[in-house]
Amino acid sequence: MQSPTRLVFFLSNGTAITAETLGLSLLAQFPDHKFQTRTIPFIDTLEKAHAVAEEVNCGINEANQLPIVICTMGDDDLMKIINQTKALVIDPFGDILPRLEKVLAAQHHQPGQSHRTVNPSLYESRIEAIDFAMQHDDGGRTHSYDEADIILLGVSRSGKTPSCLYLALQFGIKAANYPITEEDMQYEKLPEPLRPFKERLYGLTTNLTRLANVRQERRPDSRYSSLEQCRYELRAVEDMYRRHEIPYINTSEMSVEEISARIIRDNELHRTDLN
Amino acid sequence: MQSPTRLVFFLSNGTAITAETLGLSLLAQFPDHKFQTRTIPFIDTLEKAHAVAEEVNCGINEANQLPIVICTMGDDDLMKIINQTKALVIDPFGDILPRLEKVLAAQHHQPGQSHRTVNPSLYESRIEAIDFAMQHDDGGRTHSYDEADIILLGVSRSGKTPSCLYLALQFGIKAANYPITEEDMQYEKLPEPLRPFKERLYGLTTNLTRLANVRQERRPDSRYSSLEQCRYELRAVEDMYRRHEIPYINTSEMSVEEISARIIRDNELHRTDLN
Repeated sequence: MQSPTRLVFFLSNGTAITAETLGLSLLAQFPDHKFQTRTIPFIDTLEKAHAVAEEVNCGINEANQLPIVICTMGDDDLMKIINQTKALVIDPFGDILPRLEKVLAAQHHQPGQSHRTVNPSLYESRIEAIDFAMQHDDGGRTHSYDEADIILLGVSRSGKTPSCLYLALQFGIKAANYPITEEDMQYEKLPEPLRPFKERLYGLTTNLTRLANVRQERRPDSRYSSLEQCRYELRAVEDMYRRHEIPYINTSEMSVEEISARIIRDNELHRTDLN
Repeated sequence: MQSPTRLVFFLSNGTAITAETLGLSLLAQFPDHKFQTRTIPFIDTLEKAHAVAEEVNCGINEANQLPIVICTMGDDDLMKIINQTKALVIDPFGDILPRLEKVLAAQHHQPGQSHRTVNPSLYESRIEAIDFAMQHDDGGRTHSYDEADIILLGVSRSGKTPSCLYLALQFGIKAANYPITEEDMQYEKLPEPLRPFKERLYGLTTNLTRLANVRQERRPDSRYSSLEQCRYELRAVEDMYRRHEIPYINTSEMSVEEISARIIRDNELHRTDLN
């Protein structure tokens, strides 16, 4: 039996990215339940906190169930207001910070700064990586591949562009991508611009039906989106990866986050982190 | 006095995005401490867990302090191995899931699926938004602005492109961006392609020194990066925003995450979420 949809609030005085990321992970552990989520960031005054608390108290579902709240408020006074609601309030900071304080022998402060701080040089390296990904998308500017941390290969619509952008945005990694075309597939050798950079190449592939569906969205009922064509290209590109010993993954069951995490791990890429 | 650098591990049998996001937020509450972090994703076998546990046990800093571990293992057997290390192990799932189980009257399962599940239609809408952002970057394809959820304005290097890409990648929001050029600034009226879409416009601005520094990186010692030119452009663009009552924010102290969260909030944009 399907349970009634539960309301879930992700609240924070900052961007609410932490509350939301943790919250979605927690909810994913209950796949048989239906949730309706609402993210409310920047609750940074007592007035706003009171208004949100009222909203939470009114958020009863059709089975008269109170909402669940996941709240990473960095401020004790604001947190108190949310804690006084009738919902189940989960406060990971409240649970964990005391233990960290103990082990670090320190008081915490600087509430809600987690996605706020701008370290200019780190910001620059992210922006630089984004510029790089934009310029080196879809086989652009192959002459400057020596600056690339990684070069993703794959047939059209196998997930190269989102992966490159995510690597740049999240990790400051300079990722280029090169589309393997039918012409490239006709030769034994690697496409010329790739040859000097064999150790930076990483292949993406996907499932036949998935590729055909994605291409169908783009150019319905074309040769490009036909099962035949997709089958040919996937076989040829995987043959190419194996022939040249290029590591590759099948992205068909993966989110962009997972593809990126695997690329980083498999290639031991250096991430420009926020710390 | 500066404390010695503490080693911090973010561990997971999945992408480790949750462990890392929560972990970085927690560490940000201790700005006087130095941390060296290491993210290890995909610890999905007993062998891998034992190897990581050994690494954690060896990770002692110069003051003989054991590491901190933040671990979102969805699997009890794997979690046990990490819990047996000598480090301070923080296990947010272990802390919170029992409370959720109680309130939902359910057992959790599906460990580590949080950043894995691919809902094809949601994946499509993200990809579509990324395609849109790429095509509508920097004033591209202004004739299809009717499909945009939001159109970001700003002078060159004020953060438009990263914000559009982040909105697309994270939230499936179709964001275009239009660079306000010197020519645009000379007229009282809005640039023509923008006029029919006034309610979708959102302005970015930044601080003088920040803009000059960012531009200096790009084209050193040019008119483009001069304080004079930057001052003129920022004044003119802010005048334009005010004249046409376009809401705007100053992004100079903000991360891409925060800019995006504010754009969503201020414009009440609909997010294509993972749930």
